[in-house]
Amino acid sequence: MHESVIRELREFASEREWEQFHTPENLAKSISIEAAELLECFQWGTTDMDAAEEELADVLTYCLFMSDRLGLDPDAIVRAKLEKTREKYPIEKARGRSDKYDRL
Amino acid sequence: MHESVIRELREFASEREWEQFHTPENLAKSISIEAAELLECFQWGTTDMDAAEEELADVLTYCLFMSDRLGLDPDAIVRAKLEKTREKYPIEKARGRSDKYDRL
Amino acid sequence: MHESVIRELREFASEREWEQFHTPENLAKSISIEAAELLECFQWGTTDMDAAEEELADVLTYCLFMSDRLGLDPDAIVRAKLEKTREKYPIEKARGRSDKYDRL
Amino acid sequence: MHESVIRELREFASEREWEQFHTPENLAKSISIEAAELLECFQWGTTDMDAAEEELADVLTYCLFMSDRLGLDPDAIVRAKLEKTREKYPIEKARGRSDKYDRL
Repeated sequence: MHESVIRELREFASEREWEQFHTPENLAKSISIEAAELLECFQWGTTDMDAAEEELADVLTYCLFMSDRLGLDPDAIVRAKLEKTREKYPIEKARGRSDKYDRL
Repeated sequence: MHESVIRELREFASEREWEQFHTPENLAKSISIEAAELLECFQWGTTDMDAAEEELADVLTYCLFMSDRLGLDPDAIVRAKLEKTREKYPIEKARGRSDKYDRL
Repeated sequence: MHESVIRELREFASEREWEQFHTPENLAKSISIEAAELLECFQWGTTDMDAAEEELADVLTYCLFMSDRLGLDPDAIVRAKLEKTREKYPIEKARGRSDKYDRL
Repeated sequence: MHESVIRELREFASEREWEQFHTPENLAKSISIEAAELLECFQWGTTDMDAAEEELADVLTYCLFMSDRLGLDPDAIVRAKLEKTREKYPIEKARGRSDKYDRL
């Protein structure tokens, strides 16, 4: 993410004195809660795409609060994990399959 | 996020022919599943921070796949939602309180 | 649930001195975590039904631990909620529709 | 659960012609969604216990719809899983510890 978004989020929380609530555990709960609200947009097979956009933003927002709280760079951890996943799912074995790696 | 991360994610999925699995609904399920794995790092009150970093990366990764699939800019939707949240939680009313806005 | 199942669960936790971990909050987290493992059986559109049965059992187990911890009778709270839901979704309005009640 | 609760749930869904929406996958999503609403009662460290009771009832309700849909007896699957868990976590090794079994 661009650093300026992180700064805006920090300022938002700071102005409201909300950093006290942003423990890693509370943020982990919040990410799960917002993820479920996103899932709710797809609950019965139909979809409300405008609502989905907003809920996705909520999940992302809490993820950014959490990476900031843990002193992590969101781009860097995504890249580091992608590197690991590339090795776990080599192109030849994984092509066109959604199996878990232990069934490839 | 920086555009280059998005490009790497696209390439990763494309090489494995995984775009077919990345429907908005499947991605919404995946975000919830990874969010719960992150929560599991805090399940019994203790924390495994290294595991948390990796699970947070997984949640972010699926969020980026989803925003890309929906044609959205992750920074932009976070900012747009922040603007709404600022209005819902005015500084004076929200300071130091974790209540939902309807109880402020 | 039959009382004998609740008794077995209590005994299981007590023998392992696990009641100390079974705070309402930890149980709420555990229910979300297990629910996501159940969801994972349906992640990519295919299903592993044997795994689903076991994950469903895990969700139920933590729900029973929680109702027991809160001094609630699981049958009774399901019935009480059903009564409320019946009123919220009158048969004539709700028939064949999956809309949320505010869109009926 | 007592069979009469299951019967009431069946009747509730049937009257509203909602069985069509109760696919195993939709129910799995619904269980995750309701589990997150339960978790929300504990989001910021404070708790709304009345709300928690009702959300727990919602999780249980969808679990019962799902076990019924899969032709499973909820008591029986809880018992079967408990038997497995007893073996995975022998009393002597597990006493007073919340580690995952692979770290016992």
